[in-house]
Amino acid sequence: MIVVMKFGASDQEVAGVIKRIHDTGLAEHLSQGVEHTIIGVVGQTFPELRDMLEEMSGVEEVIPVSKPYKLCSREFHPPDTIIKVGGVTIGGNDIVVIAGPCAVESEEQLFKTARAVKAAGATILRGGAFKPSTSPYQFRGLGKQGLELLAQVRKETGLPIVTEVMSVSEVALVAKYADIIQLGARNMQNFSLLEAVGKIGKPIMLKRGLSATIQEWLLAAEYILAQGHEQLMLCERGIRTFETATRNTMDISAIPLIEKVSHLPIIADPSHGTGKWYLVAPLALAAVAAGADGVMVEVHPDPDTALKDGAQSLNFDNFRRLMSQLKPVAKGIGRRLATLPVEKS
Amino acid sequence: MIVVMKFGASDQEVAGVIKRIHDTGLAEHLSQGVEHTIIGVVGQTFPELRDMLEEMSGVEEVIPVSKPYKLCSREFHPPDTIIKVGGVTIGGNDIVVIAGPCAVESEEQLFKTARAVKAAGATILRGGAFKPSTSPYQFRGLGKQGLELLAQVRKETGLPIVTEVMSVSEVALVAKYADIIQLGARNMQNFSLLEAVGKIGKPIMLKRGLSATIQEWLLAAEYILAQGHEQLMLCERGIRTFETATRNTMDISAIPLIEKVSHLPIIADPSHGTGKWYLVAPLALAAVAAGADGVMVEVHPDPDTALKDGAQSLNFDNFRRLMSQLKPVAKGIGRRLATLPVEKS
Amino acid sequence: MIVVMKFGASDQEVAGVIKRIHDTGLAEHLSQGVEHTIIGVVGQTFPELRDMLEEMSGVEEVIPVSKPYKLCSREFHPPDTIIKVGGVTIGGNDIVVIAGPCAVESEEQLFKTARAVKAAGATILRGGAFKPSTSPYQFRGLGKQGLELLAQVRKETGLPIVTEVMSVSEVALVAKYADIIQLGARNMQNFSLLEAVGKIGKPIMLKRGLSATIQEWLLAAEYILAQGHEQLMLCERGIRTFETATRNTMDISAIPLIEKVSHLPIIADPSHGTGKWYLVAPLALAAVAAGADGVMVEVHPDPDTALKDGAQSLNFDNFRRLMSQLKPVAKGIGRRLATLPVEKS
Amino acid sequence: MIVVMKFGASDQEVAGVIKRIHDTGLAEHLSQGVEHTIIGVVGQTFPELRDMLEEMSGVEEVIPVSKPYKLCSREFHPPDTIIKVGGVTIGGNDIVVIAGPCAVESEEQLFKTARAVKAAGATILRGGAFKPSTSPYQFRGLGKQGLELLAQVRKETGLPIVTEVMSVSEVALVAKYADIIQLGARNMQNFSLLEAVGKIGKPIMLKRGLSATIQEWLLAAEYILAQGHEQLMLCERGIRTFETATRNTMDISAIPLIEKVSHLPIIADPSHGTGKWYLVAPLALAAVAAGADGVMVEVHPDPDTALKDGAQSLNFDNFRRLMSQLKPVAKGIGRRLATLPVEKS
Repeated sequence: MIVVMKFGASDQEVAGVIKRIHDTGLAEHLSQGVEHTIIGVVGQTFPELRDMLEEMSGVEEVIPVSKPYKLCSREFHPPDTIIKVGGVTIGGNDIVVIAGPCAVESEEQLFKTARAVKAAGATILRGGAFKPSTSPYQFRGLGKQGLELLAQVRKETGLPIVTEVMSVSEVALVAKYADIIQLGARNMQNFSLLEAVGKIGKPIMLKRGLSATIQEWLLAAEYILAQGHEQLMLCERGIRTFETATRNTMDISAIPLIEKVSHLPIIADPSHGTGKWYLVAPLALAAVAAGADGVMVEVHPDPDTALKDGAQSLNFDNFRRLMSQLKPVAKGIGRRLATLPVEKS
Repeated sequence: MIVVMKFGASDQEVAGVIKRIHDTGLAEHLSQGVEHTIIGVVGQTFPELRDMLEEMSGVEEVIPVSKPYKLCSREFHPPDTIIKVGGVTIGGNDIVVIAGPCAVESEEQLFKTARAVKAAGATILRGGAFKPSTSPYQFRGLGKQGLELLAQVRKETGLPIVTEVMSVSEVALVAKYADIIQLGARNMQNFSLLEAVGKIGKPIMLKRGLSATIQEWLLAAEYILAQGHEQLMLCERGIRTFETATRNTMDISAIPLIEKVSHLPIIADPSHGTGKWYLVAPLALAAVAAGADGVMVEVHPDPDTALKDGAQSLNFDNFRRLMSQLKPVAKGIGRRLATLPVEKS
Repeated sequence: MIVVMKFGASDQEVAGVIKRIHDTGLAEHLSQGVEHTIIGVVGQTFPELRDMLEEMSGVEEVIPVSKPYKLCSREFHPPDTIIKVGGVTIGGNDIVVIAGPCAVESEEQLFKTARAVKAAGATILRGGAFKPSTSPYQFRGLGKQGLELLAQVRKETGLPIVTEVMSVSEVALVAKYADIIQLGARNMQNFSLLEAVGKIGKPIMLKRGLSATIQEWLLAAEYILAQGHEQLMLCERGIRTFETATRNTMDISAIPLIEKVSHLPIIADPSHGTGKWYLVAPLALAAVAAGADGVMVEVHPDPDTALKDGAQSLNFDNFRRLMSQLKPVAKGIGRRLATLPVEKS
Repeated sequence: MIVVMKFGASDQEVAGVIKRIHDTGLAEHLSQGVEHTIIGVVGQTFPELRDMLEEMSGVEEVIPVSKPYKLCSREFHPPDTIIKVGGVTIGGNDIVVIAGPCAVESEEQLFKTARAVKAAGATILRGGAFKPSTSPYQFRGLGKQGLELLAQVRKETGLPIVTEVMSVSEVALVAKYADIIQLGARNMQNFSLLEAVGKIGKPIMLKRGLSATIQEWLLAAEYILAQGHEQLMLCERGIRTFETATRNTMDISAIPLIEKVSHLPIIADPSHGTGKWYLVAPLALAAVAAGADGVMVEVHPDPDTALKDGAQSLNFDNFRRLMSQLKPVAKGIGRRLATLPVEKS
């Protein structure tokens, strides 16, 4: 932490800052510039110290130097985190494709979709049983019944399941059924929920909040890791900007940036990221080319009749086309699509 | 709801859309333009219909015409909602000033602040017992002990209390102590929490999410009102923009806009809105001039040592100065500051 | 300028940075922290140095300490800049009201409006002869004919004129007619134009760009002042955010912030800032309460038929109402509305 | 254009709107909904009409249906625009790589870079002679001398040149040297400049403004095409968002979206888009995977000493590595990198 004193700060003001630093058990390092006196804080600082110093008389600015997160940083944990779910590996050289309907609507819709995405090469099934909805009047998922349908379809297809949990009271229930517990964008800073899922021990996918900086996202991840949890992956799903032509703006640069600063696997969700089905395939390809460890896309047997997010869902033909495009692009960057383990007969 | 067909859409595509409309029990109204065929949907539409129609062949765009919220709209409930809390009226002609520390830190800090803001003319006390924190390593409030201190200080001063609840499991506890339950910006779309507090029957203050549109904010309010709750006020506290000179960008235009479209009282929080104590007074004055029903400001006996958000807190002198500025501005727009009811001896 | 070395940077890397600093004729000040080595750069730094250092091996970050602007800073020029235009003073205790049509459309429209706003108490007339337009197919102003009409109406009413210049080739022409030359939001970083108007010697109003940070805005002002120009005022007119309920988001906090860091007068334009006529008065009042030196509002005899920006224009009645509200609010903060000098008979 | 009347609008108000429509020579189509009366405007509407109608009594909203641009739309001109520059084709199946220094600094720097990028497979050389700079105190390019150096290096290498023009007065000069004239992000709405370059007849590259919507960008393109110009390409270079970890947020989704709605070629500039050299390659690969017709990257012999934007420049090794990654990704999506025509000896 570096304290920059105002131009013309008095000796007394400088002494005041140094005293405050000493009071908190830290040491200082003084540096007299032409325009500004700079005081480096030496020792293990803590976030509140910034506010405490920033408001002192004569202080221009306090600049934190160390990153505020630790457990999720690449410096703290240099090797990639690798997560294994039902024989599928996430975060290694293989790229996973997670596909399925936005919401579980019915047995028929779910089974048809699961069979189709498996046949096309998807390795994990997505499907929402509890759905966040901006309006209290919209469809909000089948709940427990949806979870049971997911368990049935997993039994038939062997596809591991990722599904969202929305409140602390449902964590135990969802954890019983899910292979990967998803935390949605709106809950990225629902700190009670972060801590609750962090205690369960199941793999977690943490989506980026609509207006979360990458640093805030990693701090949210830190909440989970601070529970002793390790099997965490992140999911970029678009941020909110002034552009209205797309539902959100997919921040593809977050993918290589996360890879640089963190050891956690990073998945891309171009369905929510764009909100338009005809942009899903180009953005899925872009995410893989930029280094994503996987993509998650919404697929529906008949997007026109979907109860939720039909506009951003691929039909089966479009999904098969996407899979056939993903393979050569993955190969182009020296990776390949993950496959399900061969079933023993 | 209006369906705009693509330039050159076929008769078959138009017929398909009309059939889908009929299938949902609604009627259509066809209009042939020079460039586009327009189909009006007649009857009580529902949000999913938009997605269902938007993805049909030949459809360019589906435009919702009715607003998606109802209970919180001015059309549905023309008179202003007026909330009474401990003898103080919110949403009428008087302007309430809510003041106090960001977080309850100690008995001394809380009592000193409460006495000072009361003496200066504040009518409601704010103070956080459960504090959201971006980082798991920061101060997160005194919890139940903080609530008890708030109850003690209310007993002494007569000031009603507003304090935040962060998770469903703490709703009952917080409701026991609070006069107004605050829902923070990060929880604006924590739908389980919205429904839980909506069932309690205590006055609620719903803060705007950092990246929430006004419409999303009103839809979150709708979640609460849909529980049969009525005593709800909104609080503008700044939105996230590209500007980094302030912590957030205070959206003052939201104040008269909310007043136009909704009957709910609207409070402004310039402390979180700006993040800098020297901007708090100008923005509080601006909010009142723009029509806010109240302002909520952070006050601390010694902002330099505050455990939370000291940089945006006023000290007692600055708060007294603000109060002396608020009075003539309130008068200038034909309103006045609320006062506590006279205590009987 | 402060260079933060990476955790574990080698002695050789530190030496490399120090050598580069010496090579540019500056000195260094070394500080060894627990996690990071910090190198302060001592002497008059220059902006390119940051890039030069930031990319060196072992460097984590380079933090500029001095502000990048000088001439427009309050530190460089502590007293307020005061501008006199036709007997009206801008930047002192009085608050100016600038009013008039978005675009000059006809003699009748302009004269009717000028008389009405003068009668209601406005002290400066606005009116565009050259109009920026997002589309090449929209109305783009009457050009020279518009300027001549403005000159005629000034002769009759005594109101000084503010009008926009859009390209270097029109600077001389516009300067011949205008009392204050306006630089629009889209041209805030049209550096050729900034330099061209800075050489003219007439008062200038520099609008904030739609996505300009306050620092970029002040750097644009710096371009003008660097020509030796002094009579410059700034104009906040809303920034671009994710919110679509208003045309732009009026950044009211920019007003007291500019006042703190710069000596230049600051005007608010709530017409462009909100895009909705019914928000203009509340935001004009808010801007004055927050410390603006003036407001600029669009007024039109018949907003419904305006060729440009009718939706955000006040009619005469609404403008008179606004004037009657501005007076007590200005009084409430210890200021008053400016008046035209008494005409000699 | 569709006029949505307010709930409860009177017959008189509806009649008023219809009269206004008739007055402008258009016809109407009335549709009575359950909640709202809808009036479709039949005939060739014009943008001002929206404002004219939106402010009429009883009108809730006016919704434009036709897109506001025409010449640059895919509907108006279905086949892709293909531009030929010095034997290189832009907008066809081949992907062009444009590389070179941000600013021309010296003969040595330019020639070294040009030879290196040509050897690595680049087909067009970029280099700025006139440079926009946020601050008046920063390096602003070599001007005419820079253009002459560019001409010399083109003679030696055969690489066509793209270079920026910043003001109308320099258009003729820049056009004399450039093969492709670049319009920078800050000038995207410098309408005088758009029209001036549109009259020259040389290929143009129009960069997206920092806060420009895709629609505004296409309207800026429309200004150029409206001059009768055809050889125009667009360049996505990142937009301004709240995220500060990258210089801008690269909007990769704009690439397939532009391809869908417009016939103009689209180039991606990940150097400005990210501002960090280590993100340039992943984002260049992403852009190509998403369908870009080319990428433009900054390359410098020694980024550490670059006078401009060193932090985002690749050195020669990194550029060669990028080229070797681009080839298989281009192949993966069925395209290939463009090559220079074979020189005759």
